[in-house]
Amino acid sequence: MQGLMMNTQLTITTIMQHAQSNNPGVEIVSVTGDNPRHRTTYRQAFDRAGQLANALVKLGVGRGERVATLAWNDYRHFEAYYGVSCSGMVLHTINPRLFPEQISYIINHAEDQWLLIDPMFWPLAEQQLAQCKTLKGFIILTDSAHMPETTLDNVHCYEDLIAGEEADFDWPDIEEGDACALCYTSGTTGNPKGVLYSHRSTVLHAMAECLPDAMGLSGADAILPVVPMFHVNAWGIPYAAPMVGAKLVFPGPKMGDGETLQDLIESEGVTLAAGVPTVWLGLLNYLRESGKRVDCLERTVVGGSACPVAIMQAFKNEYQVETLHAWGMTEMSPIGTMNVPMPKHADLSEAAYWAIKAKQGRAVYGVEMKIVDDDNNELPHDGKAFGALKVRGPWVCSSYYERPDATEHDAEGWFSTGDVCTIDPDGYMQITDRTKDVIKSGGEWISSIELENIAMGHPDVAEAAVIGVAHPKWDERPLLIVVRKEGSDPDKQALLDYFDGKVADWWKPNDVAFVEEIPHTATGKIQKLALRKQFMAYQLPE
Amino acid sequence: MQGLMMNTQLTITTIMQHAQSNNPGVEIVSVTGDNPRHRTTYRQAFDRAGQLANALVKLGVGRGERVATLAWNDYRHFEAYYGVSCSGMVLHTINPRLFPEQISYIINHAEDQWLLIDPMFWPLAEQQLAQCKTLKGFIILTDSAHMPETTLDNVHCYEDLIAGEEADFDWPDIEEGDACALCYTSGTTGNPKGVLYSHRSTVLHAMAECLPDAMGLSGADAILPVVPMFHVNAWGIPYAAPMVGAKLVFPGPKMGDGETLQDLIESEGVTLAAGVPTVWLGLLNYLRESGKRVDCLERTVVGGSACPVAIMQAFKNEYQVETLHAWGMTEMSPIGTMNVPMPKHADLSEAAYWAIKAKQGRAVYGVEMKIVDDDNNELPHDGKAFGALKVRGPWVCSSYYERPDATEHDAEGWFSTGDVCTIDPDGYMQITDRTKDVIKSGGEWISSIELENIAMGHPDVAEAAVIGVAHPKWDERPLLIVVRKEGSDPDKQALLDYFDGKVADWWKPNDVAFVEEIPHTATGKIQKLALRKQFMAYQLPE
Repeated sequence: MQGLMMNTQLTITTIMQHAQSNNPGVEIVSVTGDNPRHRTTYRQAFDRAGQLANALVKLGVGRGERVATLAWNDYRHFEAYYGVSCSGMVLHTINPRLFPEQISYIINHAEDQWLLIDPMFWPLAEQQLAQCKTLKGFIILTDSAHMPETTLDNVHCYEDLIAGEEADFDWPDIEEGDACALCYTSGTTGNPKGVLYSHRSTVLHAMAECLPDAMGLSGADAILPVVPMFHVNAWGIPYAAPMVGAKLVFPGPKMGDGETLQDLIESEGVTLAAGVPTVWLGLLNYLRESGKRVDCLERTVVGGSACPVAIMQAFKNEYQVETLHAWGMTEMSPIGTMNVPMPKHADLSEAAYWAIKAKQGRAVYGVEMKIVDDDNNELPHDGKAFGALKVRGPWVCSSYYERPDATEHDAEGWFSTGDVCTIDPDGYMQITDRTKDVIKSGGEWISSIELENIAMGHPDVAEAAVIGVAHPKWDERPLLIVVRKEGSDPDKQALLDYFDGKVADWWKPNDVAFVEEIPHTATGKIQKLALRKQFMAYQLPE
Repeated sequence: MQGLMMNTQLTITTIMQHAQSNNPGVEIVSVTGDNPRHRTTYRQAFDRAGQLANALVKLGVGRGERVATLAWNDYRHFEAYYGVSCSGMVLHTINPRLFPEQISYIINHAEDQWLLIDPMFWPLAEQQLAQCKTLKGFIILTDSAHMPETTLDNVHCYEDLIAGEEADFDWPDIEEGDACALCYTSGTTGNPKGVLYSHRSTVLHAMAECLPDAMGLSGADAILPVVPMFHVNAWGIPYAAPMVGAKLVFPGPKMGDGETLQDLIESEGVTLAAGVPTVWLGLLNYLRESGKRVDCLERTVVGGSACPVAIMQAFKNEYQVETLHAWGMTEMSPIGTMNVPMPKHADLSEAAYWAIKAKQGRAVYGVEMKIVDDDNNELPHDGKAFGALKVRGPWVCSSYYERPDATEHDAEGWFSTGDVCTIDPDGYMQITDRTKDVIKSGGEWISSIELENIAMGHPDVAEAAVIGVAHPKWDERPLLIVVRKEGSDPDKQALLDYFDGKVADWWKPNDVAFVEEIPHTATGKIQKLALRKQFMAYQLPE
């Protein structure tokens, strides 16, 4: 028996229209390349989104076709979010930090029609992207006074392009399953893979994100997304903020600049800011050096990688800012878990409290999580068993865009996150490793990260990595790879004995290899893949 | 182009499973007819929901068939919410305050198969409902020690019925558009009309309700729904609470008892309570008389009818409890608007602040509102123009159950609420009248409620009502109907002149009729229909 309720489609257009009716005067403040403090409102931004939609239609972009952006967080990028997606086109946000070859690859793979681009990235476009075969041209996100010189045809100035257009656009009826946005993961191996978000997934994710035990967003908030709009749609904030009528503060290209962030927070009354741990470390250092404050800031959402407890403690104790530890993925729109204390945690000791805060948090409603062993058997949520994390939910991708070779989805519809974690009885998840880095010894798993963290505590160790190397009896056994502290010369056995009493005996590495340097990715993570290649033929002692 | 995101269905089952995984130990506390303070947890309640589902299947109830309840707010009713709806059956909650003939009518109209009933309503069932033609029997919501005596066959004791069943139930895959619950409006005219909620509408409504600018529900809350579970699913709280892991406190049959409410609030740490204004007036009177406090209570949600400002002020000033003024309808699941202040209201004067709080509030995301005149022309949101309120949204009904005669829905999919209101530029809606009570004079509308409120301020008036009566030139003109205060004998013209300066001249009533008594409904509202019949032939003076 069918219910008799309206079949209102969950589209991004409804978010725009809700803000237009209820919060037209709420501000959007931006730092841009051409203006250190630009101010507009939802009404004006959505009017200009209509102008952009009219312009794109005139340029010949059709329903479902991709329009790409290569841009920082500001009001023009925000206008593109709505002007493109609400007109039934698909917004493809590109990460400018990718290698130029990767950017060309994903533009070609996505078959982008037009590219909206910040002037600072123009040299890249002129030198490399102009050759992309489906690209019909470029729209430079600036006004005529700040246009770069170019010899290319088909280059428009954003402000000139939309200036002559009507704000009224006949926004089409969109089915909620239709695609609205596309974002490629920056995988460490192979070509980037595209996640094609739907209007429905984006709206549901935004609603879940606003819940009090997620980001708790409301009309009383002023939100500073320091996470880029090219990175999983700035964690959904450009959708969530107009949904609840929150003020938006965009840092433009000044993402990593502690001074700008402090100034924006204090002068614009920012209550919530979101970004990766290094952003907050940078801000923390700036605050300590300058003696300045962020008194209006109530909370930060920290994700992208595990947030060190010391950063959370410093913000809480020195600046009364609560850190909301979060975990997600491009494939999850991105939010999977948020770490908010439960009422019963009020009585915990300091140490126990921070041990919980160090975890990635609990599933928000909508996200189903399970951990499994090598044979896909579900493991208990006891806070001890660790297994491969699989997820399901209405804002989790069902497959990658045009990648039939991908293997992350199983027959029951679960997506393999690639993370290894524990889940405690209250549902708090803690990542212990990546599935490709975990060491599989005699059918049991050993966490490489846990061993590394222990080794890093040894006074003679400057950096440590642990990888699994082949073993005739146990399949794999852990090898500890160490960069010695300058001037120290530790004994191998002493380093191995350092694990005694800290882990189960069978976790103890079988050997130590000393190296001058451990290879890192551009974002500072250890390149385990390179290490595994380097030590592929390593012979463990008997 | 279709998005590539999981097609996870929004079903009530996902709420149950989320709570089982993440908040199994959170408590549900109930007052019941057989236990003044029953304690259970989400895990136990959902286990028992599984037992109930197994029992209902054995009783022969099939997918889509209706199972009715006639019960107060407690854990057994909560178990029925999930045991019935998650097994693909439809939960039909019946209002025991309806006339017995109406209850029989809706059981027959809904073709209910079984009725779950509180022992206190058993006499009604035995005398009247046993004749309902589709009812196969009764399940009395109690244990064997408290079973009433009966001569009827097919009467089960709830506890005995589920005791032998497994908690494991193979919950079916449900399409989100499938019906989950049915609730009849208690219309003042004609037979009650059924609203058939879908899983999707119920889940989306629950998510919206939890948003910070709606009820702001979180795992830190303990919620006391004083609004009955037979009245629009207790405003969705039985779905929203397990979605966020909030503790539930059910008052059972003690809804109107200030002493019980105060005791539940203080002893169970209730942070949010929800109900109609008379409940809060009752609690307020009890608190003032007893000198007792409700210090843990942070906020109340008040809807059902306009909340007098004096009640809101008393709770805020005397007890530091914030009132969230809300508006909704059975047809809207029910939430349409919630009144939460905007940041800019922080600087308002006391008077201006309370003038905003008196309004019904702003549309929550998902609800579209417009006001129209007699010709369906949209009126401005200027806080002055008042028109008939129409709404759309994913939790608004698209038609009534098996009522092809109903006319509330228009061709564009808007639902006519029957309310007349203003909407200000910030989106705050204020109800000024009902469409059937507004007086239509020369194509313009006059608010009967506004005239009544003014008349009530006259020292000689005990009660006042205003209705429209036929007028040869203006179609309708207002007639003021007055019950005089004992011992007073006001002059008609003096009463009419009392409106001078308070309303536009053309709003001034044309005449006054004195009566001994004004007829009221069971819930204390003026019966305008009866008054219109009484004064149908009334001749206004020239």
